Amino acid sequence: MSAKNTTQVLIGGKIVTLSGYESEEYLQKVAAYLNHKLAELGEIKGFARLPGETKQTMLSLNIADDYFKAKKQAETYEEDLQTKDKELYDLKHDLVALQVQLEKLKKMQR
Amino acid sequence: MSAKNTTQVLIGGKIVTLSGYESEEYLQKVAAYLNHKLAELGEIKGFARLPGETKQTMLSLNIADDYFKAKKQAETYEEDLQTKDKELYDLKHDLVALQVQLEKLKKMQR
Repeated sequence: MSAKNTTQVLIGGKIVTLSGYESEEYLQKVAAYLNHKLAELGEIKGFARLPGETKQTMLSLNIADDYFKAKKQAETYEEDLQTKDKELYDLKHDLVALQVQLEKLKKMQR
Repeated sequence: MSAKNTTQVLIGGKIVTLSGYESEEYLQKVAAYLNHKLAELGEIKGFARLPGETKQTMLSLNIADDYFKAKKQAETYEEDLQTKDKELYDLKHDLVALQVQLEKLKKMQR
């Protein structure tokens, strides 16, 4: 287990001290992502005038949407992997059958 | 394109009206996920006494962490898919080569 890190990141212009087992690099990446999301939301007309709580809820919903999309993508890839595994299994089976047939023919020719 | 929906969801005990092209089912799923995350955070000792803004930041960081983990998972599966595609390509090539060899041998035996 790696040592516990304490890292300061800037989120929405405010210094946030994070403590955990994740690397500083990872925490900075997460903070940069949140800032990017905040900037995106900031471009929506009228967003700046919304109550702080509403802004935060919109931010959370937005990130959760990214999460569900990434999760869906992972699930799709996982299904594709299962299909390909099945295909690989069948092909290997065919290959072995052909090799057996080939060996038999070769023996007959000797 | 599907019609724009307006859905009311409950997040952290508050009614939030969401408007968008996502289905109500999806929006309820996202809200349920956020409530689950809030409940998880609520179990951390001292969380309830933190300022609202800190709680929100912790929630955002937590969801972003889930997002990055799902994204990483999708990327790993994508790499696995590429490896399997290469493997399938090679196996198909071997299979064709064997079939050609087999046909030749069969002709010689006629």
